[in-house]
Amino acid sequence: MQKHEGQSDPLEALIRESCSDPEVISFAGGFPATESIPQDELAQAAIAAVRTLPRVEASLQYCWPEGKPALREWVARRLRARGAEVSPDRVIITAGAQQGLSLAFKQIVRSGMTASVDTICYPGALDLLRRLGATLRAGSDAHAPDLAYVMPGISNPTGADTTPEQWARLRDLTCPIVADEAYAELRFDGKLPPVLLAEAPERVFHVGTVSKTLCPGLRVGWLVPPAHALAGFLQDKTLDDLQAGTLAQSLLVGLLRRLDYEGHLEEVRALYRARAECMVRELRRRLPELDVSVPEGGFSVFVDTGIERDELAFMKTCVRAGVLYDPGTRYQDFPERPASLALRLCFSALEERAIVAGVERLASALHAFRSRAE
Amino acid sequence: MQKHEGQSDPLEALIRESCSDPEVISFAGGFPATESIPQDELAQAAIAAVRTLPRVEASLQYCWPEGKPALREWVARRLRARGAEVSPDRVIITAGAQQGLSLAFKQIVRSGMTASVDTICYPGALDLLRRLGATLRAGSDAHAPDLAYVMPGISNPTGADTTPEQWARLRDLTCPIVADEAYAELRFDGKLPPVLLAEAPERVFHVGTVSKTLCPGLRVGWLVPPAHALAGFLQDKTLDDLQAGTLAQSLLVGLLRRLDYEGHLEEVRALYRARAECMVRELRRRLPELDVSVPEGGFSVFVDTGIERDELAFMKTCVRAGVLYDPGTRYQDFPERPASLALRLCFSALEERAIVAGVERLASALHAFRSRAE
Repeated sequence: MQKHEGQSDPLEALIRESCSDPEVISFAGGFPATESIPQDELAQAAIAAVRTLPRVEASLQYCWPEGKPALREWVARRLRARGAEVSPDRVIITAGAQQGLSLAFKQIVRSGMTASVDTICYPGALDLLRRLGATLRAGSDAHAPDLAYVMPGISNPTGADTTPEQWARLRDLTCPIVADEAYAELRFDGKLPPVLLAEAPERVFHVGTVSKTLCPGLRVGWLVPPAHALAGFLQDKTLDDLQAGTLAQSLLVGLLRRLDYEGHLEEVRALYRARAECMVRELRRRLPELDVSVPEGGFSVFVDTGIERDELAFMKTCVRAGVLYDPGTRYQDFPERPASLALRLCFSALEERAIVAGVERLASALHAFRSRAE
Repeated sequence: MQKHEGQSDPLEALIRESCSDPEVISFAGGFPATESIPQDELAQAAIAAVRTLPRVEASLQYCWPEGKPALREWVARRLRARGAEVSPDRVIITAGAQQGLSLAFKQIVRSGMTASVDTICYPGALDLLRRLGATLRAGSDAHAPDLAYVMPGISNPTGADTTPEQWARLRDLTCPIVADEAYAELRFDGKLPPVLLAEAPERVFHVGTVSKTLCPGLRVGWLVPPAHALAGFLQDKTLDDLQAGTLAQSLLVGLLRRLDYEGHLEEVRALYRARAECMVRELRRRLPELDVSVPEGGFSVFVDTGIERDELAFMKTCVRAGVLYDPGTRYQDFPERPASLALRLCFSALEERAIVAGVERLASALHAFRSRAE
């Protein structure tokens, strides 16, 4: 896997070691704000799920590979409200969005295929595609690809909206499209992107999750494949791990019953918008030489430093300064990738004062690194 | 996948429809007894896991692909007590034993390889092997296989112990061995089988789970691969689904802290032994023409009826009589598989009076079917 072969182990080791150091401010990881996880409702749901024997049966025994009917209905209902004709029996509950991507790519990709991806793109998708033998083509370089991977509405890591040109291109494609909506509900303006599934139900593989909006530790996401592909996915899901966690699904059903999900989304969007604004403001103040785009949503900004790339050396400098980030190479891991240091900086899990302090540390690390290089 | 291509959809549909019918006694599914799930301790663990914000962080956020340190330590400690030199950092926490098998086979098997399996064997392993292009060879037919799959101590579905001849054969092999201990702790005599991992640590892929002993709905199992293969597995696990459920792992850690696990195992072994004895007694009484072996452990017996195979017709007869079973074909799905009807009959999740009634219904169905066929 290029991610691990291309990057040195010392870099991975340094990140892992540093991210548990309480003295280090971490912009790494793509974590939701822990305080945004609806703790009280989850506690109530947990108690209800294990209190009586019939509940224990429904919460702790095996269930079917496609998942709990109440969750499938919830996913389908929300997609129908956006114009996609999705019945609950089209929905497969997965172990997070990552398993949705893994299942979809395994069924679509054959070695030698060309996959269209964004120029700056989620590495969990890039790694899967490479593993399956696909040739990656970034954005407009991809002419008549065999498949496309897209994050409609909000990109990870850039936080950028899908542009009208990108939408037009997607709508012109005739190949399978994997549409990853991991962050789509976290646009700061609250607008949801068009559901590609509604426009091309026979070739769109729709992926979603509650990992960013509610809680990643449940490992609950979903895949809505074209109807003709459903039976194959149920077999694949069974072979992979039999089913998504029964208790996690039960808790989520209980949580959604107790929680005003739309109200919760509004709250967390406001939280992340404030943190994004703080991050952009501080970056522009401390590092005015960088070109920082304001994200439309999501958890992170992505900046290119223009400094020649030596990831381990720069990460060491940052860790010494007490700050951590996600190395940008993994998000742009193409043959023609830029030779300069790029950083994914997540603001999502940090209070504003930590963002302020973290950017200050990052600025001092970057200035020290640059002056040493000169 | 042969399982689904070979079997008709109507059979699957009939099983699914019937197993939720409260009038039907189900010997299908391999479920542990719901009343054996330690409900009080789980409830306490659940409340503790979501009560305070630091706990929420540890229970509901992302964690590393290899899983929680406390669980890895628990798995390693129990293997060390059986003579295998396993450090916690060799253990990968998986989404149940099925994902352990899936990860192991994906790394070992290349198309065209010969895999040695038991003559009567867990279909979740057979299906994976076939999917990866392996040629299956049952038991002693396999001469110098490229890999072997084995359930040491207790076989699913037969409940049989590994024979001395089988052990001798396993010890003579020089190929990779996937050792699936899903039922190993549920031998009725409480004895644990030898850990192959201790004898050939460089080529044994050890798989375990709490799905049968504690609770399947958590989806927590483990894979202990040879040390040289570990890094590859962490990459594969990340690509598959990032990590096992954080909350499920936290709950299991909390449960193991509160529960006397050895005492719990003794209790459930006694429960399953009593149910197994009831099942064998009733089968011999009502269907003396069948050859029924007493299981050494596990959840099921496996019987061959000797009647010519027409699985859908027989399943229909059984459902009409109010009883359900797992079709035996899936457990013997080789080119040379027998042409007669075989049944996996799980006693694990049924009280003895239900076993008695279920066997009575099965006997009447079998007699009706046989007389109609004649």
